[in-house]
Amino acid sequence: MRIIGIDPGLRKTGYGIIDTQYAQLSYISSGTITIPTDLALHRRLKYIMDTIREVIAHYKPSQSALEKVFVNTNPQTTLLLGQARGAAMCALADTGLSVAEYTALQIKKAVVGRGHASKDQVQFMVQHLLNLNGRPEPDSADALACAITHAHALPLTQKIQDLDMDTTHTARLRHGRLHF
Amino acid sequence: MRIIGIDPGLRKTGYGIIDTQYAQLSYISSGTITIPTDLALHRRLKYIMDTIREVIAHYKPSQSALEKVFVNTNPQTTLLLGQARGAAMCALADTGLSVAEYTALQIKKAVVGRGHASKDQVQFMVQHLLNLNGRPEPDSADALACAITHAHALPLTQKIQDLDMDTTHTARLRHGRLHF
Repeated sequence: MRIIGIDPGLRKTGYGIIDTQYAQLSYISSGTITIPTDLALHRRLKYIMDTIREVIAHYKPSQSALEKVFVNTNPQTTLLLGQARGAAMCALADTGLSVAEYTALQIKKAVVGRGHASKDQVQFMVQHLLNLNGRPEPDSADALACAITHAHALPLTQKIQDLDMDTTHTARLRHGRLHF
Repeated sequence: MRIIGIDPGLRKTGYGIIDTQYAQLSYISSGTITIPTDLALHRRLKYIMDTIREVIAHYKPSQSALEKVFVNTNPQTTLLLGQARGAAMCALADTGLSVAEYTALQIKKAVVGRGHASKDQVQFMVQHLLNLNGRPEPDSADALACAITHAHALPLTQKIQDLDMDTTHTARLRHGRLHF
């Protein structure tokens, strides 16, 4: 099972890809997408979407996970983050991937073992769990941590997603699309 | 010139399409996309994106416009709105459309003639300007008002977008995409 984790942002979007087999995790790839800040908003969102699409096309993950974001006290920042998150989710959902979401607390618990771990501890454990030679950079580490959390939660998540698929199917039948 | 205006939301997303020729506006279509609330977030975003894509494929607009949203005091609501907005912008940008953005003030000034007009006055003027038989429903009216604003601003916007295109091209050359 191959999982892509995404840490979305309008300036930097991190991604991390891992394989999981019988509770054995292995690192595949990670990186940070740096979005040119001199572009108009819609072009920045398309840049996020296109680059995630490229990553998906290349690594072909079968599962995806995102961190449920911390809502910033600055509403304008929250709105911008929401838009970046929307673009990332669209890129994932558009290729048919389900998107699991985890809170920072769930991620820290899964990766470090306790909910109040520091960012540094998360990075250290990501390096340790995936046998990396060096400390991954912050955005990649967060994305990898999210993918690791999903790998841990997978047996349960799988069941919930199966239920979700059923619900979606019913919903599609009930709510007709547009008719021209 | 055919313009699509979008009023994005996670529960209801309005769209309105008009044609403009020598300051003459004509109504083409409008509607409200009702997003099934029982879907997971990523499926709701994909629903918005897919439906806007269907509308674009059918009506083939060459320009698009969105309202610069009012930032809600509830951060969670702002985040959700941001995500819906991100999905709508991705759908537009993905088909190669540029997305112009206008504040509520600009829209009210363009449609009613003054920045502090009521929602009711905007609906009335949209009906009047487009020679509609009835009052359009709120989400469609907002989307149509946004399209009308873009039609008014078009000569100037065109110049800015041409500049923007140049910038994008330069940015693409400067910031390399991912290399695997």
